[in-house]
Amino acid sequence: MNKHTILIKTFDSKGLIYKISNILYKYDLNIEYNSEFVDNKNNIFFMRTVVIGNFDQSMLVKDLKLILDKNSFINIINDNKKDIVLFVTKEEHVIGDLLIRYISGALDVNIKAVISNHNILKKLVDKFNIPFHHISCNNLTKQQHEETIIECLDLYEPYLIVLAKYMRIFSVDFVNKYTNKILNIHHSFLPSFIGSNPYKQAYDKGVKIIGATAHIVTSNLDEGPIIYQDIIRIDHTYSLEKMKEYGKNVEKIVLSNALHLLIENRVFINDNKTIIL
Amino acid sequence: MNKHTILIKTFDSKGLIYKISNILYKYDLNIEYNSEFVDNKNNIFFMRTVVIGNFDQSMLVKDLKLILDKNSFINIINDNKKDIVLFVTKEEHVIGDLLIRYISGALDVNIKAVISNHNILKKLVDKFNIPFHHISCNNLTKQQHEETIIECLDLYEPYLIVLAKYMRIFSVDFVNKYTNKILNIHHSFLPSFIGSNPYKQAYDKGVKIIGATAHIVTSNLDEGPIIYQDIIRIDHTYSLEKMKEYGKNVEKIVLSNALHLLIENRVFINDNKTIIL
Amino acid sequence: MNKHTILIKTFDSKGLIYKISNILYKYDLNIEYNSEFVDNKNNIFFMRTVVIGNFDQSMLVKDLKLILDKNSFINIINDNKKDIVLFVTKEEHVIGDLLIRYISGALDVNIKAVISNHNILKKLVDKFNIPFHHISCNNLTKQQHEETIIECLDLYEPYLIVLAKYMRIFSVDFVNKYTNKILNIHHSFLPSFIGSNPYKQAYDKGVKIIGATAHIVTSNLDEGPIIYQDIIRIDHTYSLEKMKEYGKNVEKIVLSNALHLLIENRVFINDNKTIIL
Amino acid sequence: MNKHTILIKTFDSKGLIYKISNILYKYDLNIEYNSEFVDNKNNIFFMRTVVIGNFDQSMLVKDLKLILDKNSFINIINDNKKDIVLFVTKEEHVIGDLLIRYISGALDVNIKAVISNHNILKKLVDKFNIPFHHISCNNLTKQQHEETIIECLDLYEPYLIVLAKYMRIFSVDFVNKYTNKILNIHHSFLPSFIGSNPYKQAYDKGVKIIGATAHIVTSNLDEGPIIYQDIIRIDHTYSLEKMKEYGKNVEKIVLSNALHLLIENRVFINDNKTIIL
Repeated sequence: MNKHTILIKTFDSKGLIYKISNILYKYDLNIEYNSEFVDNKNNIFFMRTVVIGNFDQSMLVKDLKLILDKNSFINIINDNKKDIVLFVTKEEHVIGDLLIRYISGALDVNIKAVISNHNILKKLVDKFNIPFHHISCNNLTKQQHEETIIECLDLYEPYLIVLAKYMRIFSVDFVNKYTNKILNIHHSFLPSFIGSNPYKQAYDKGVKIIGATAHIVTSNLDEGPIIYQDIIRIDHTYSLEKMKEYGKNVEKIVLSNALHLLIENRVFINDNKTIIL
Repeated sequence: MNKHTILIKTFDSKGLIYKISNILYKYDLNIEYNSEFVDNKNNIFFMRTVVIGNFDQSMLVKDLKLILDKNSFINIINDNKKDIVLFVTKEEHVIGDLLIRYISGALDVNIKAVISNHNILKKLVDKFNIPFHHISCNNLTKQQHEETIIECLDLYEPYLIVLAKYMRIFSVDFVNKYTNKILNIHHSFLPSFIGSNPYKQAYDKGVKIIGATAHIVTSNLDEGPIIYQDIIRIDHTYSLEKMKEYGKNVEKIVLSNALHLLIENRVFINDNKTIIL
Repeated sequence: MNKHTILIKTFDSKGLIYKISNILYKYDLNIEYNSEFVDNKNNIFFMRTVVIGNFDQSMLVKDLKLILDKNSFINIINDNKKDIVLFVTKEEHVIGDLLIRYISGALDVNIKAVISNHNILKKLVDKFNIPFHHISCNNLTKQQHEETIIECLDLYEPYLIVLAKYMRIFSVDFVNKYTNKILNIHHSFLPSFIGSNPYKQAYDKGVKIIGATAHIVTSNLDEGPIIYQDIIRIDHTYSLEKMKEYGKNVEKIVLSNALHLLIENRVFINDNKTIIL
Repeated sequence: MNKHTILIKTFDSKGLIYKISNILYKYDLNIEYNSEFVDNKNNIFFMRTVVIGNFDQSMLVKDLKLILDKNSFINIINDNKKDIVLFVTKEEHVIGDLLIRYISGALDVNIKAVISNHNILKKLVDKFNIPFHHISCNNLTKQQHEETIIECLDLYEPYLIVLAKYMRIFSVDFVNKYTNKILNIHHSFLPSFIGSNPYKQAYDKGVKIIGATAHIVTSNLDEGPIIYQDIIRIDHTYSLEKMKEYGKNVEKIVLSNALHLLIENRVFINDNKTIIL
């Protein structure tokens, strides 16, 4: 028996749950998990249903379309492992955390490759027998650099691109090419401290709590839909270095939690916010 | 148009969501909020649906019973304010917090009365023009004391009894008379530090985090289904007195959050655990 | 025997702890609590010492000045209850929390008066027999309004002014008149969402955590030194109203915690940050 | 210039800070960091001072002993990297986290070896070129097994033994041989859920928060002095497997934080509690 996740985003109207569940019933599908949310302000209905059973996917989509608004979003995702590509620059903590999860089986994806603008983490990645592509931006325009990256990504066609502390900003064109497919970890409690050196900003401000934010990358720097955030408490005894060091604990857990939500097909994008079912 | 919350707990079977939503659709009810949960281990289905519309309640129950297992639990709760009675002993912080919420409108219930085994909080309660019953246990057996309390409760027939730091233990008979109707706040992170003087136990143990637990009272002391818990971080500089003082902040918020969940009809009891939809 | 808190802020130099503790030893003072901090970046030494014993305060200050840099800050604070004045506008939760702490003895100050630009909370404050001054800003310029407030404050000469959800912004002149004496609670996790309607800003941004910040008021709106912050986790199901309601729990606890730190003489201002000893 | 940490635990008496700082001043030592704590209940004074300068260690101890109670504890620790040995059984997450910190330089120790009762993690440890000793307990009595372990430990003479999810219980004799030198991570919020399978216990209990506890191992199972604890919020949707998976995030951070406190010489043992300066 196959497991699939059905994601539906549509205009809300009376009887939607009945009509959708009626179709699933007719297809003799077992509902393992079901949740809905209605954005009352915009009158949008979200539904995530995990079903078990065999069915003709295009038929089901067709039948669902008959009862839904024509602008509806319907996505049926199988249970296969998803392919991801990681981007890094110099720091070990986030990618290291993902690699340990990966070999332990906790992170149920295929890490197809790691791409970096530096060569520093090659040694670490090699230990785990994952292809490491050093794509330096030296002597390249931003456009040339991104074209090289795109060529490399084309080899892997990843379901998700995970920026595991990748310290360069992509162009709008690049981001638009991979809409809702790029996950980033920002080392601050957004929207506080957008941009570079957020720990320095936090240190100078004297905040008593710092955090990290995992979000979908959009064309507005550090402003994409937030998936997960967490914080730790600090005090005046924390030097900038200590803040950075302890902040890493939050960064890696926040990114990992967001990544799990994405690979479990639990994240809807709703305007610039996320609905997590 | 009326608002009702429909709670259903039944054996899980294929098509339940379809069958139930079909009935609600036929009754022309608008679903404002809907959520389900399946306890896979015990094969139990839980559903909470908030509907808007006019309907014959006994007819709806009858129709639901036709499609559900005969041992199913069905509860339809209207949107009226619920009556509650508070029990206190000597401490101001929890009842004070509830009273401030009450007069601000944030706590949307009728506080019918306060019952106490001491007279100390009468002055505070009087400020808010709520009947205060001092039912001392002096010169009374436990049974006599509880009979007096029951007589008093009979005047109010509360939907919920809220123990807002009531420092006496009820008999099994008393608890069984008000099954799933008594909410308690215990000043520890249960199951740590069951019984008396949990802060002293926590102080002696040297824990680095303390907490509070709101739970339904059952015949096993401090062992009933947990609705809400929260914690605060402490360190070796906390004296027992400071722990108690800061712990109060957690106690009152935890009780308030649990009370809100109960009056919003969001809590199912499942064995000795809670499902919160 | 008297208890005093000695606060020292001075340029750091070798032997400071020895030299200061030597003087305290000669005065035969018992040190109940002592802590220090050095801001290495700016080479500033902070010390808070709670001493028990009888001594001539001006003599002690004179002796301390002999060994300290001439720009040093020395403050010796006795153990008497401090006078405070509360400012409010319309919301009950923060002032209500303070009042309940006050009558329970947990908040060890004298609340001399409550000042408000509205009359709404008079009924609540009257219950606690505390003078309530309604100083409306209707038909007054900002300057006239603040002059009336200052006249009123002059009656009480408070050690601290606590803005318990006072929804008006003071002029720079007013703030400068009460340097480091005004405590405010801002209903966001600063520096996120400075200014008006922070919950609306947070809701629109789709953050997964909201918070509150207690800070000293300076001439830069919402930018003064932060004393305490805390947060709660939210999700997409939180309406703006629910965010506001649950946010109140954080606001009142954060303000109360900051107030306790201030009345226990534990807060140093260091540039635009706080050192809490 | 050398950096040392001086730890003093002694009976409290008037003038202690003065007398100790006087000696440090005479030795011309620069105090980089200093903190004290007095356990008023037992009248014990704790002091941790980080000093910079050159001095004769035995002379300093001698001079300190002249002014302190004869039962005092004095420890002067140099700034060299400490040697540690890790114990593991089958799980990757804690040791993996430590290894990534180690190669990034964030964990400033020498990991001399990993000892395990299983061979499973050899492949992971080999990637990092650290000796892995598989000491199976098959066909061995507990005493024989521990003797083999002790022989192995004798090769390394570690400053600390870190149980990074080592799933066997040491004998009292073994523990007493390494008093205050064994750090353990227990996968529950102690004292809740002592013993085996704490997640199962937590799941069955229906708690709304789970945690992890790092503590010094003593002869009482899971009852040694607690160094660090942290928690995560869960709900009824968490299966036992999901609890275990998310609990791992807390386990590894809690162990790492406790280990950092130990290698920074910040932990005093006071009866069965810790003082962290």
